[in-house]
Amino acid sequence: GDCGERHKTLLLAVPVSMFFLKRRMPDPAQRDLLMRQEASRQTGGRVVLTAAEQKLDAYLHRLKEQEMSATPFPPALHFFKAKPLIEKSPVFKLLQKMPKGAALHIHSSSLVSVEWLVKNITYRPNCYICFTWDNSVRFQFSARQPFPRWDCFYWQLLETLRAKIGDPTGFDNSLMQHLTLFTEDPDGQYPSQDVVWGKFEKAFIASAGLVTHAPVLKDYFYKGLEELHRDNILYLELRSGLSRTYELDGTIHDKFWTLKTFQEVTKKFIGDHPDFLGARIIISVHRALSISEVKAAVKEAIQLQKDFPDVVAGFDMVGREDSGKSLWFFREALSLPAELGVRLPYFFHAGETDDEGTDTDQNILDALLFNTTRIGHGYALAHHPLAKELSRKRNVAVELCPISNQVLKLVSDLRNHPATVLMSEGHPMVISADDPSLFGTTGLSYDFYQAFVGIGGLKANLGTLKELAANSITYSSLPAHLKDSGRAMWQKKWDAFISANL
Amino acid sequence: GDCGERHKTLLLAVPVSMFFLKRRMPDPAQRDLLMRQEASRQTGGRVVLTAAEQKLDAYLHRLKEQEMSATPFPPALHFFKAKPLIEKSPVFKLLQKMPKGAALHIHSSSLVSVEWLVKNITYRPNCYICFTWDNSVRFQFSARQPFPRWDCFYWQLLETLRAKIGDPTGFDNSLMQHLTLFTEDPDGQYPSQDVVWGKFEKAFIASAGLVTHAPVLKDYFYKGLEELHRDNILYLELRSGLSRTYELDGTIHDKFWTLKTFQEVTKKFIGDHPDFLGARIIISVHRALSISEVKAAVKEAIQLQKDFPDVVAGFDMVGREDSGKSLWFFREALSLPAELGVRLPYFFHAGETDDEGTDTDQNILDALLFNTTRIGHGYALAHHPLAKELSRKRNVAVELCPISNQVLKLVSDLRNHPATVLMSEGHPMVISADDPSLFGTTGLSYDFYQAFVGIGGLKANLGTLKELAANSITYSSLPAHLKDSGRAMWQKKWDAFISANL
Repeated sequence: GDCGERHKTLLLAVPVSMFFLKRRMPDPAQRDLLMRQEASRQTGGRVVLTAAEQKLDAYLHRLKEQEMSATPFPPALHFFKAKPLIEKSPVFKLLQKMPKGAALHIHSSSLVSVEWLVKNITYRPNCYICFTWDNSVRFQFSARQPFPRWDCFYWQLLETLRAKIGDPTGFDNSLMQHLTLFTEDPDGQYPSQDVVWGKFEKAFIASAGLVTHAPVLKDYFYKGLEELHRDNILYLELRSGLSRTYELDGTIHDKFWTLKTFQEVTKKFIGDHPDFLGARIIISVHRALSISEVKAAVKEAIQLQKDFPDVVAGFDMVGREDSGKSLWFFREALSLPAELGVRLPYFFHAGETDDEGTDTDQNILDALLFNTTRIGHGYALAHHPLAKELSRKRNVAVELCPISNQVLKLVSDLRNHPATVLMSEGHPMVISADDPSLFGTTGLSYDFYQAFVGIGGLKANLGTLKELAANSITYSSLPAHLKDSGRAMWQKKWDAFISANL
Repeated sequence: GDCGERHKTLLLAVPVSMFFLKRRMPDPAQRDLLMRQEASRQTGGRVVLTAAEQKLDAYLHRLKEQEMSATPFPPALHFFKAKPLIEKSPVFKLLQKMPKGAALHIHSSSLVSVEWLVKNITYRPNCYICFTWDNSVRFQFSARQPFPRWDCFYWQLLETLRAKIGDPTGFDNSLMQHLTLFTEDPDGQYPSQDVVWGKFEKAFIASAGLVTHAPVLKDYFYKGLEELHRDNILYLELRSGLSRTYELDGTIHDKFWTLKTFQEVTKKFIGDHPDFLGARIIISVHRALSISEVKAAVKEAIQLQKDFPDVVAGFDMVGREDSGKSLWFFREALSLPAELGVRLPYFFHAGETDDEGTDTDQNILDALLFNTTRIGHGYALAHHPLAKELSRKRNVAVELCPISNQVLKLVSDLRNHPATVLMSEGHPMVISADDPSLFGTTGLSYDFYQAFVGIGGLKANLGTLKELAANSITYSSLPAHLKDSGRAMWQKKWDAFISANL
């Protein structure tokens, strides 16, 4: 009786007949079929590989089997400890060479490696430093001794300071420590989410004085594109608050200047690297602002998008979700474009939390109700079945940033990242790096490694990688004709990658 | 164009019209509707609460909000550190009083608290102890000095040894340490899954000499039922290998004896506690055995089920999945009942792993293909979309044992347990304790706490608890008429619980 009832409720896409074979061993052929059906649902599960790709896939699978039986398994460790292991991995080396498409979730404040900031930028003339009471630093470029500020009384010219210091390498390393979360003792240094977010914001403030110097910003953008390009990435969507920038003489530039500069630098970069497609900005404001401030920011973003239609992709709200206000709190501000009859695409961070059932958790559904184009992180999406369906059916991709989620202490072993569920279901998804310089990464290869080996597990294959790379163009904010160019550029690189690695 | 296309693909159970309201703020009423629709999918989301239940639910929600804003948050800690915090929690205290229905996944080797084993059993006459070279212990009841064994040369009478030792409390605590995983420094003591499983097996072997003593086993079963009953549980399905038991004079009893004893003890317990429904056995064999040994075990289980139709619920394979053989490896043995035309229900452990795409991971689908009645753990189920559908449509419940998964190092922060996904979708599920004495728990209240507060989050409510408790009867192996009695018994207790806590 019990068994008969079970059969009646069976309404699947697989032949029902096979479940009536109770009296015999499950048929191995039918078992294979089910396994293949399940595998076909994962990200890239329906990608048809060429003969050459199949060969590389088989090789990759062997590499991965070795990787997964190794102890310790890098995705199970904190990334700061796993990094040297990952860098030795043949899978990682292949991922570095792989054309990964576009980087769609990177913040401008941590686009470029701290090594370059310290070794290049802080060695420039007129760079002043100040040590704050709370063990942080501030930088300022200035033609004369900067005025004391509330947080900084005593500014020293770095050139003079360095000349006095016996150990410039040690000093430079200490400067880098101020600008990144990277450390050899992550568990000791960052016992909780609060502590790691505190350091996160300190590092952000510390680098601001360097990066908002107008001449530096130009080089910074260029260097950022260079680091991505070197990691085989061809397009960038950069989240930026478009901070005001300053000249040596005290002149202040506005957001218009920053967008114009970004546009020019990108143009120059493409001139120097014709295999690079371009870069756009997602204007981002902090969720600590008031409703009226966000209203003003939305209006400004609408105007800036009119001024720079090729550069401004849309709008987002940033800052730690768990301690900030919810999207629904800002509903009046976020409804403005619709009320004004204009289109301002949203790229909302949502569900970057492991607290279930809270207001932050609720951001997931609200991002979709406000018609977000993509979901930043979407860490909580897997346990929102209705929002998950909406996201899938409306083709709203999740921007998965595994290393960020681990460093910011949402998850320790990446095999438990909720994206395991999303990947197994082939949910729309792209891989990104969030804050590469803060986490000690460059480009997307590290995050691809974690997604491919840790989250995807042994079953993720070359088809998965191909789809993830292709997704990054599909889910970009580019107009259709530029997506086509991007796809063609990427396909050419991909084919070359396959041939070169057979 | 882009937006229009999105709408066309929208085929959800929610009114499509609401997504055309792009030009306005999302309607708060419709937003509420979507939130309620999503909430209705979770475990217990469709349970209709009485007025009294609603009142308790509101109270519970307030308690939970306090609990979730506390630092540290117990489900984010290792259970061994969280235990004293949990014991102070008013939510936990309510869960202890709550009638939880049945315990469907507990192993006989760790049914009873180690406190009782040491303070009661090892104080009985004729109890010998031996310390092994690998820092473990063996026990044996014997009328005379036991013979040396390969692992134990020197047996001492515990009574004599205790008389010599100055610190009996310290000594007893050290004995308890041999019998449980519980420790104040879990991270230091158990750095890896291998280490914790090693200790797990050592503790199992250490207690065997006590528990397999025939007179002890009787008391052990009784005491086990008592501990469950005291935690407001009314029925048990116990996984047991039915080890041979011994008398003081060296007589050895077989599995038949053990089942008979279990039946008698259960009967006596019900006589003493008329509000207890009963207990059954799931015969379990270790996955380290050979195919032919498992074949023999399956045949034996078929026979024992004929002999004890009211006691033997079915068959399972136990032992660490990641280091043992897969279900598919044993397919010939597991197909025997079907070939012989008899029914031997399976209750397979499956997917107790975080390695994706491996043979162990594959156990999930194979358990279903072999028509398992429930899935033990099913930790990997959330990323097997097809197996998940099968499990749901065939009404095969997952036996969720959150503390076990954390202690055995599949996940550290329980908010990342994959059952968050299953609970949000209302997947068939019961809560159990796996190895209570090894983990330092008694009954199911600790695991209910973790599932309700950690995995369910703020959105899990009294309906969730009610459904989880009711599920434990629905998904038991009991015949329909006993399920009805069980449900009636439980409902009576439930109503009393609600009234008592208003």
